[in-house]
Amino acid sequence: MKNEANKIPYKIYLEESEMPTQYYNVRADMKKKPAPLLNPGTLKPMTFDELRPVFCDELIRQELDDTTAYFDIPQEIQDFYKMYRPSPLVRAYCLEEKLQTPAKIYYKFEGNNTSGSHKLNSAIAQAYYAKQQGLKGVTTETGAGQWGTALSMACAYLGLDCKVYMVKVSYEQKPFRREVMRTYGAQVTPSPSESTEIGRKILSEHPGTTGSLGCAISEAVEDATTHEGYRYVLGSVLSQVLLHQSIIGLETKTAMDKYGITPDVIIGCAGGGSNLGGLISPFMGEKLRGEKDYHFIAVEPASCPSLTRGKYVYDFCDTGMVCPLAKMYTLGSGFIPSPSHAGGLRYHGMSSILSELYDQGLMEARSAEQTEVFTAAEEFARVEGILPAPESSHAIKVAIDEALKCKETGEEKTILFGLTGTGYFDLKAYEQYNNGTMKDYIPTDEELQAGFDGIPKFPGNEI
Amino acid sequence: MKNEANKIPYKIYLEESEMPTQYYNVRADMKKKPAPLLNPGTLKPMTFDELRPVFCDELIRQELDDTTAYFDIPQEIQDFYKMYRPSPLVRAYCLEEKLQTPAKIYYKFEGNNTSGSHKLNSAIAQAYYAKQQGLKGVTTETGAGQWGTALSMACAYLGLDCKVYMVKVSYEQKPFRREVMRTYGAQVTPSPSESTEIGRKILSEHPGTTGSLGCAISEAVEDATTHEGYRYVLGSVLSQVLLHQSIIGLETKTAMDKYGITPDVIIGCAGGGSNLGGLISPFMGEKLRGEKDYHFIAVEPASCPSLTRGKYVYDFCDTGMVCPLAKMYTLGSGFIPSPSHAGGLRYHGMSSILSELYDQGLMEARSAEQTEVFTAAEEFARVEGILPAPESSHAIKVAIDEALKCKETGEEKTILFGLTGTGYFDLKAYEQYNNGTMKDYIPTDEELQAGFDGIPKFPGNEI
Repeated sequence: MKNEANKIPYKIYLEESEMPTQYYNVRADMKKKPAPLLNPGTLKPMTFDELRPVFCDELIRQELDDTTAYFDIPQEIQDFYKMYRPSPLVRAYCLEEKLQTPAKIYYKFEGNNTSGSHKLNSAIAQAYYAKQQGLKGVTTETGAGQWGTALSMACAYLGLDCKVYMVKVSYEQKPFRREVMRTYGAQVTPSPSESTEIGRKILSEHPGTTGSLGCAISEAVEDATTHEGYRYVLGSVLSQVLLHQSIIGLETKTAMDKYGITPDVIIGCAGGGSNLGGLISPFMGEKLRGEKDYHFIAVEPASCPSLTRGKYVYDFCDTGMVCPLAKMYTLGSGFIPSPSHAGGLRYHGMSSILSELYDQGLMEARSAEQTEVFTAAEEFARVEGILPAPESSHAIKVAIDEALKCKETGEEKTILFGLTGTGYFDLKAYEQYNNGTMKDYIPTDEELQAGFDGIPKFPGNEI
Repeated sequence: MKNEANKIPYKIYLEESEMPTQYYNVRADMKKKPAPLLNPGTLKPMTFDELRPVFCDELIRQELDDTTAYFDIPQEIQDFYKMYRPSPLVRAYCLEEKLQTPAKIYYKFEGNNTSGSHKLNSAIAQAYYAKQQGLKGVTTETGAGQWGTALSMACAYLGLDCKVYMVKVSYEQKPFRREVMRTYGAQVTPSPSESTEIGRKILSEHPGTTGSLGCAISEAVEDATTHEGYRYVLGSVLSQVLLHQSIIGLETKTAMDKYGITPDVIIGCAGGGSNLGGLISPFMGEKLRGEKDYHFIAVEPASCPSLTRGKYVYDFCDTGMVCPLAKMYTLGSGFIPSPSHAGGLRYHGMSSILSELYDQGLMEARSAEQTEVFTAAEEFARVEGILPAPESSHAIKVAIDEALKCKETGEEKTILFGLTGTGYFDLKAYEQYNNGTMKDYIPTDEELQAGFDGIPKFPGNEI
């Protein structure tokens, strides 16, 4: 009934004809650009040719291009998007009423697809360019399984091979994720495996190991570079991924503009940065061009606080140290977040675009502990209906904080946050929360120092 | 690109202002009405007063009313619907292209909410009327957990107590479903339990039993009738449930009318009948009034073939024989479908509305075996993106069959089917299918006869 007066529907869906036809590259509007990827051997910027054995050509072009503002979205990708996009921009009337806040809360919900998250936006783009290049397939790693699922779906649609190296402990503990990927025709291999040299080496040195993301990346890269017609793809961190994810922000902005809504605060959870970067890109563009101002807040877990407690230096993107060096806020590629932490956002670093924006003071960062995040998740689920992913719930937590501040001050701020996905595959964590056995974990300064000690040292890369 | 020429979008979403504000009661347009519920003791039609200790007053009124065509949807229910409805009517362009069929395929997708299915449509209505009556809460049983989840969500929203008796084997084997319900604040009890007299009796007679749906119903009914301020609610079979589910068909019809689309064939899976009944209601109304003709197809599992191999007689609605007698197509309330059968649709009977329509020759029924259903599910998932529930996949199977027939004949039929939900909690079954260990099961005539032998015998109820 509240919405009758406001004339703003519970859910704003764009028409197909209003959907974005171009991705937006926020780097084009940054005066000081993110630092380039470095070759760890030469410490010189990675060139197109150096990246070609690993990545698809068009994706390298996108990765290296920090001046072109818009990239056309190919028709086949647009058609795929039409199967699950536009995603709804939801007015959280019920949450507002529950909180008794004068704030207006909106969230962009990316969980209404079988992969359960925004990852599909980049998976289809990456798979498309691989197919365009005439490749047979792609390889990747997956931990919790969201990215692997998204990539499997994209590859099934395009008829591409999809090889997923899944961290062995997840392969065994998350059989449902594995089966979704297999249903979509992916070849899912527990890592470390006997399929690669690095896998065999690790297995012989550490029999019985349950694997790690670093090891899975190394296997996926080796598989891609030793098989004709394959390339490696990655679901976050890279600038190309933020480019594809800009579809989230572009749709959001179009929907808000249509109803004359201007957000004051824009909040997103941040692991590698793909969702937050995608959501804020067009708004940040306006801020960079001096057209408008917004208050951006990145929310990361207190157990893996790369922005709030990390260093802004060059570091390896992967624990296996096979990928190029990226300048980013990092806890060190050897930093392993507590296994008690639920869900994603466990990445030691942060997108170099977001790192640079944060370093320039254009964005705030906060950390949240997981029990308070699940408290927010439960409150949200009960009034808004959607069971959120633990990752997304970091943004919910801070959105609620901001809405309660408005209640105190009486300000009618418009709060926008990204609801990246659903928690259907995270119910072990919900069970812990429901049973009161969930623990918080904040790394000590000594633990962080151990991570920093692993950061490569070279002139200009002082911590 | 195909859709550019057709001008029909991939997904048709109604505006909030176009959403139905009344439920449609198909019984009002039936010349020969479904037979009334009978009191098993007196064999006379159940009266309002006899039903009051078990069900909410308004729901009894709806159950017994076979003449009022439209019931207003209360504003609070309409507001709740706006959180997850209108559900999309999807044009299956990708499936059409994969099948190379001239048929036009549409599906109404009810899985875009946390309960994962259409069950929420009736859960919120039943919870609302309970609250209106000033009750403290409701009780119910759940097997696979879809209905229990939906009811938990509805009760959390309205601030009602929700007690769910979950068949013990499911409680243990489907911990995720259990945790979703707990996150929504429901009290979930494995059945049989120590909380009820019937539960204690069964436990003492059969220590170590893993429970049954019949036992869980008996416990839920006992709990409701022995606690002040509680009533029992049910997620399918009853005519009130079909009334609430008519929202599916009403939205579908509005969306199709908006684009000038007329379906030739309308297909739904059928367990207790809530989804199929809801989808076809307004179309069946037109057929009953002689305004239009449609070809309706109910699809049931070959392992639980109530329409295709059952008897049209009075039978108990529950295996515990505590509920009234309903005239319906039934396999006998003692019939237990093979445990190898995946997902829902395991109900021994069928909605008395659908049974009567089928008996009058207004609807076709077919059965499908589960491996062919999963083959259809996988094909659908790979091209349309959505991972379907096993239940829904029965409708997909027949929709594909019909589309392939059109390919042979060249007919450009318009096929509509109901996609009731997602398969995120059915991945054990997908795993069996992926591993090639899934088995089909068709009951023998002798097994069916054993079920028929349990049907109550009285004058006029001959098999």
